[in-house]
Amino acid sequence: MSPTSELLTSSPSVVAVGAGMFADAVDAQGVPTSRVDWQPPMDGTAADLATVAADPLRAEANARAVAAVLAVQADLVDVVPAGELLGLGPSDFLHAGPPITWERASGPMRGALMGAAILEGLVDDADAAEALFASGTGYTLDPCHHHDAVGPMAGVVSASMWMFVLEDAASGRRTYCSLNEGLGKVLRYGAYGPEVIEKLRWMSGVLGPVLQSAVRATGRVDVTGVLAQMLQMGDEAHNRNRAGTLMLLRDVVPAMVTSGHDASDVADVVRFVGGNDHFFLNLAMPACKLALDAARGIEGSTMVVAMARNGTDFGIQVAGTGDEWFTGPAQVADGLFLGSYGPGDANPDIGDSAITETAGIGGFAMATAPAIVRLVGGSVPDALATTRRMAEITLAENPRWSIPVLEFMGAPTGIDVSKVCRTGILPQINTGMAGAVAGTGQVGAGLVTPPASIFPAALAALASRTRGRA
Amino acid sequence: MSPTSELLTSSPSVVAVGAGMFADAVDAQGVPTSRVDWQPPMDGTAADLATVAADPLRAEANARAVAAVLAVQADLVDVVPAGELLGLGPSDFLHAGPPITWERASGPMRGALMGAAILEGLVDDADAAEALFASGTGYTLDPCHHHDAVGPMAGVVSASMWMFVLEDAASGRRTYCSLNEGLGKVLRYGAYGPEVIEKLRWMSGVLGPVLQSAVRATGRVDVTGVLAQMLQMGDEAHNRNRAGTLMLLRDVVPAMVTSGHDASDVADVVRFVGGNDHFFLNLAMPACKLALDAARGIEGSTMVVAMARNGTDFGIQVAGTGDEWFTGPAQVADGLFLGSYGPGDANPDIGDSAITETAGIGGFAMATAPAIVRLVGGSVPDALATTRRMAEITLAENPRWSIPVLEFMGAPTGIDVSKVCRTGILPQINTGMAGAVAGTGQVGAGLVTPPASIFPAALAALASRTRGRA
Repeated sequence: MSPTSELLTSSPSVVAVGAGMFADAVDAQGVPTSRVDWQPPMDGTAADLATVAADPLRAEANARAVAAVLAVQADLVDVVPAGELLGLGPSDFLHAGPPITWERASGPMRGALMGAAILEGLVDDADAAEALFASGTGYTLDPCHHHDAVGPMAGVVSASMWMFVLEDAASGRRTYCSLNEGLGKVLRYGAYGPEVIEKLRWMSGVLGPVLQSAVRATGRVDVTGVLAQMLQMGDEAHNRNRAGTLMLLRDVVPAMVTSGHDASDVADVVRFVGGNDHFFLNLAMPACKLALDAARGIEGSTMVVAMARNGTDFGIQVAGTGDEWFTGPAQVADGLFLGSYGPGDANPDIGDSAITETAGIGGFAMATAPAIVRLVGGSVPDALATTRRMAEITLAENPRWSIPVLEFMGAPTGIDVSKVCRTGILPQINTGMAGAVAGTGQVGAGLVTPPASIFPAALAALASRTRGRA
Repeated sequence: MSPTSELLTSSPSVVAVGAGMFADAVDAQGVPTSRVDWQPPMDGTAADLATVAADPLRAEANARAVAAVLAVQADLVDVVPAGELLGLGPSDFLHAGPPITWERASGPMRGALMGAAILEGLVDDADAAEALFASGTGYTLDPCHHHDAVGPMAGVVSASMWMFVLEDAASGRRTYCSLNEGLGKVLRYGAYGPEVIEKLRWMSGVLGPVLQSAVRATGRVDVTGVLAQMLQMGDEAHNRNRAGTLMLLRDVVPAMVTSGHDASDVADVVRFVGGNDHFFLNLAMPACKLALDAARGIEGSTMVVAMARNGTDFGIQVAGTGDEWFTGPAQVADGLFLGSYGPGDANPDIGDSAITETAGIGGFAMATAPAIVRLVGGSVPDALATTRRMAEITLAENPRWSIPVLEFMGAPTGIDVSKVCRTGILPQINTGMAGAVAGTGQVGAGLVTPPASIFPAALAALASRTRGRA
């Protein structure tokens, strides 16, 4: 029988794309129907999508970008003060997200900068700190990302803060991240009171040195491998890092015990790290940056290599457009609030931690962490659906980071600017929420997306380069 | 309209129970069909099922049994040598499962007993050990379960082995379990070579004392609570205990560091525990026994309070039948084998570790540990289906032990002998496999069920008591 006559004589089965009315009508006639989600491309992107789709470099550039990212092996190799590591003086400050000035900085960013200035002895109190920063002189302010670093929430780094050093042995490239302070009143959420400064001083005086001794004696700690284990242990490595934190302890405690540090200091360090389920976030983030930076500057690649927020702007960088930032207004997350806080208390999205989603974990691996979906206001089916949806806008699955409950599907890795523009599906980020007023601290946790506008902007830049090369 | 006329005028929707032919026929007519699994009761159980179902004590007895089990809070409170704790002399041995003699003991049980006799200095070598045990005199052999204890695999306990002590504060009841040796050539799998004995000597000389100091200084460690966390972290607490082991370290290491023990011993202990993902199994098991023992002796209750195997017999004990064992032949697990081993090398099912399934975790909580389903030869959908199927034969869901991926369903807890007989669904156990030849060690891991016959036997005993009370 010819295929055509077969169509006429056999029972039909229908694939319905997009709006559901046609599928509903066919369903009503008892015909098996598969529904495929579809929505039109983002407004005004049709011409640029066509240009980029026809870019002769694109397919190979994206394949190279994916291969480069997946080949990176991030090892923790050292713990060093930021001053020594990055050459920061007491008046030099790094921050999360794309570049920003004090004038445009949000409450939590200002609060964290004020706290860091007090910590460094640059000023005596918050008023003096505010006056210093408002004066616009006598200090520098630079994104972490411009110094091979990342920072969660406000992401403020100053000279006396110790940083994890991660290295990809094959390339020798390194990335850095500060040490996680735990929850409650902490600098990264914009708090700067005396208890915040006191804890930071203990971190500089005890935690950093003890970790340094332990890591140097232990040798390379395989952070990429720990991340693979975490995805089998309910962590998505952005808002849940409990298993990762415990595995870090397992790996470095033996060397810590025999390091010669005072036993009570070692016990305090184990208690501090073990009591802070987020401690490993500050290793997950630089591991993700180390992987993604391998794809920076690949001409023709439409892969996102960074998503970062400074509390005012949300910015992305793309492999094929060098170090240019495409920015739009950071959104307020939708989620659950601590105590009596509500949506009116929350600052817009802040932090470099969306580097985890950029690499395929965090919100992209929500399926692996059903235990946190309630924390950010979602349900288990939402979590499974989110991970599957992110596969629609990414270039690859990461075979090392497999998600057991989705039949060991690899984490959806490598956000493709053109897929985002073509589908209108925005990257899903799960995040903590800082109080909008400087000094408040954390007010909640929830789900957020980037502002849609930044993807057509990045696409336009990619299309312009494509045309320039034609 | 009357309900009857409604039936005639509205579209039918059909619920089909049992064999699929009727459902297939209705399906073919385009009628929505819900299929309900059903199979006939186990052979010969109809009369006993009717008797037990009509027992006026049953409903309330089972409610009391469930409430008693769920109310138990298991805390780790001490670590003590078995000799001191249980009054064992050097020629007294405990073993897993229901009572057994040397003559009927399997290879791995014999191997473990021989190793323990060497460890205790009772004999000089394996030949002398074999002769001693074969003589039938000069030693005692008793189930762990008869001494408030449990042991994984061969479960052999002798005087110089240290044991965890768990306590339910409200009742003061205690249960015990030996310390886990890790994988490879280990006593519990029937190996007894010099490296096995050497490790056991280190465990008695260093591991036990360091853990004792740490636990005594830490205070009560909430094992029931750690188990709740484990189910959110990919552990089902029988064949996967990685997160639990790490949480134990987190809780006791600070006190271990300041215990005054030699730093290199402390480091060795952390390395040993951290390198043995099964270490927490030996806390999960006595926590489950502590919970289930709360229901022992409740007249009229059809709830299973222990499932245990000695490598020859599989036995269960039931709340409403005192300490009587109902036994049948232990089965060989179906699963995956290490190296060149195959099904012919495997000993039948062995160990007290099925106490985890009896309490609702292990194979009953496979849905929470998709990462291990491959290890035991299953798939993720199998794992989800298994947990749902176990809910068919259990009396309750444990609200403290919730399974995130099944929308936070509680672990299916309290196997009901009458539900097993009525449905024919057997409890699902996942387990390690020991080599059948004494001295071999582990050969694989897989899935196994109890012999079906022991449930009708227990039901008959329950029915007989019901009739006796009538």
